Amino acid sequence: MQINIDLKEKSYIVYIDELTKIELDTKVVIVTNPTVSTLHIKTILSKINALECHVVTVLDGEKYKNIDTLNSILEECFKFRCDRKSVLIAFGGGVIGDMTGFAASIYQRGIDFIQVPTTLLAQVDASVGGKTGINNQYGKNLIGAFWQPSAVYCETVFLKTLPSREFNAGMAEIIKMAITFDKDFFEWLEINSLHVDDNLQHAIEKSILIKADVVSRDVREEGIRAVLNYGHTFGHVIENETKYSKYLHGEAVSIGIVMANELACKLDILSESEAKRVKKLLLKYSLPVTYKIQSVDKFYDRFYLDKKSLNKKIKFILPHSIGNFSIKENLEKEILLNILRNFTC
Amino acid sequence: MQINIDLKEKSYIVYIDELTKIELDTKVVIVTNPTVSTLHIKTILSKINALECHVVTVLDGEKYKNIDTLNSILEECFKFRCDRKSVLIAFGGGVIGDMTGFAASIYQRGIDFIQVPTTLLAQVDASVGGKTGINNQYGKNLIGAFWQPSAVYCETVFLKTLPSREFNAGMAEIIKMAITFDKDFFEWLEINSLHVDDNLQHAIEKSILIKADVVSRDVREEGIRAVLNYGHTFGHVIENETKYSKYLHGEAVSIGIVMANELACKLDILSESEAKRVKKLLLKYSLPVTYKIQSVDKFYDRFYLDKKSLNKKIKFILPHSIGNFSIKENLEKEILLNILRNFTC
Repeated sequence: MQINIDLKEKSYIVYIDELTKIELDTKVVIVTNPTVSTLHIKTILSKINALECHVVTVLDGEKYKNIDTLNSILEECFKFRCDRKSVLIAFGGGVIGDMTGFAASIYQRGIDFIQVPTTLLAQVDASVGGKTGINNQYGKNLIGAFWQPSAVYCETVFLKTLPSREFNAGMAEIIKMAITFDKDFFEWLEINSLHVDDNLQHAIEKSILIKADVVSRDVREEGIRAVLNYGHTFGHVIENETKYSKYLHGEAVSIGIVMANELACKLDILSESEAKRVKKLLLKYSLPVTYKIQSVDKFYDRFYLDKKSLNKKIKFILPHSIGNFSIKENLEKEILLNILRNFTC
Repeated sequence: MQINIDLKEKSYIVYIDELTKIELDTKVVIVTNPTVSTLHIKTILSKINALECHVVTVLDGEKYKNIDTLNSILEECFKFRCDRKSVLIAFGGGVIGDMTGFAASIYQRGIDFIQVPTTLLAQVDASVGGKTGINNQYGKNLIGAFWQPSAVYCETVFLKTLPSREFNAGMAEIIKMAITFDKDFFEWLEINSLHVDDNLQHAIEKSILIKADVVSRDVREEGIRAVLNYGHTFGHVIENETKYSKYLHGEAVSIGIVMANELACKLDILSESEAKRVKKLLLKYSLPVTYKIQSVDKFYDRFYLDKKSLNKKIKFILPHSIGNFSIKENLEKEILLNILRNFTC
């Protein structure tokens, strides 16, 4: 199946389970990590027909998503004498995709790149939207570019080797999109199992369609695209407090969704029974829904460390009943502290 | 006077001698170099009205146009807690403009920047086109982005303090554009002195109009924009051979124009008398028109070191009589060596 992503500056296609052959009359550099390389490099190489094909393996994990790893990717491109027509292929999860995309965006002022995401999270989230970047000491993704891929290939076969914890973390983002944008899809997720191949394909397709619609309306995240951050305002603080080691990103988002929902209930835009249904769906995929805050004041202060809040008010994305969203700014500190206090015991 | 630069992705205005006040309801970081700062920082500060205004001074010169200086600019932006609405102002020559623009393009995935070029070269060449970048061990501008400014202010007052050698180097680019695109402008340059204020304004305007027209037809340098490289194929080799220390960029381009013209004469698309007129105009601005090649073979090989030639044939941009251009590929090596031999004594 194919989804056309139609952005003002560029259009491209996301192919789901349709990768037969990538034909390129150029040099190609595949950027991957050791895990994915060990499992799947032969598969991907058998599907690429290029002038020359090089593989660059970089260390995996958020902590390697930095300037040094980026430089090592660029360095290899120079060594292979890649030119402006060369193509990078990101073959891995979100970290590989973000770094490869960023490298492509600045190599000789920008070359093409193709995404072949190998995690559920990367397939439904990172592969659409064109956000690329690296972390630094000041925070996550603070250096980067909006750079759209020329094509995305989501192959569910690569998800077969994904540890279940990582699969479930990807589910958090799928559930997130259903809650704020699509009630029918949410209800479908409640009654169907994604461990059935056709269902998995369907869920990936639905999620990409939702995200593509949002992104095409707001490529540079100046408006509605912020809604995709539902669960993330709380989630980022949790990731930060736990030093990005205890929870996977999707797990922190899962807890963030639960916290945001408590706030939404408090503001009477979400019912208790809806919040329970969300929690039940998260638990269906063994996602964490509780968190013990040590200090509500410190937690609250960390909202302001997020780059999106510099210089301005914090924006909370909340569900407005299941299937709709609401953006709340200027919430009183006391209301927020009260919500956070529910997570201290 | 105002020139509207209308690109597909973005439009902005180049103001010539119209800088009264830059009003910004955001944080602003002015990036400049010690020379420009000493001479003009008060002037520029008096014209900026912003929420906060910081000045970052970085070392000047092509050899500092590297990743370290780029990082130091970004670092200051983080220290000042710049957000996505903050604006960088490039206040200096081409090196400052290229680095500031690149920093703006990757800071939090891209923020606005304004160019206030203080050299003639930067006003007529670097300020229009959106090319930003840094050098590395593999060559010039190999890492970078196409990132358009939100506005450009060309103030001739800043050119008053420019050393005449630098002024003349800027003239080389103006002359270059006249030769390939505008016969009338070339003839106007032959009879008028740019040391008259009104004439200088006029020449800057004409050059920007020519460049804007070319760039708007080919933002990402996939076609006609290459014509702006007239004189540069030879010029880059000269800069490279002399380790970027003997000649200013414009001076190397001046020699490159003379070399390209000899080739054009050889190919019968330019007359000897036209080549003489060009040389005379270059000499009017004390630009170098001779160069002693030590080894024609080495010089020839260096054509292929230029990034634009990786993996492909070298493209020569030549004048097709004054006011028009011709692009020649697949020229026989012997023809080129013959031209180069003219410059060995």
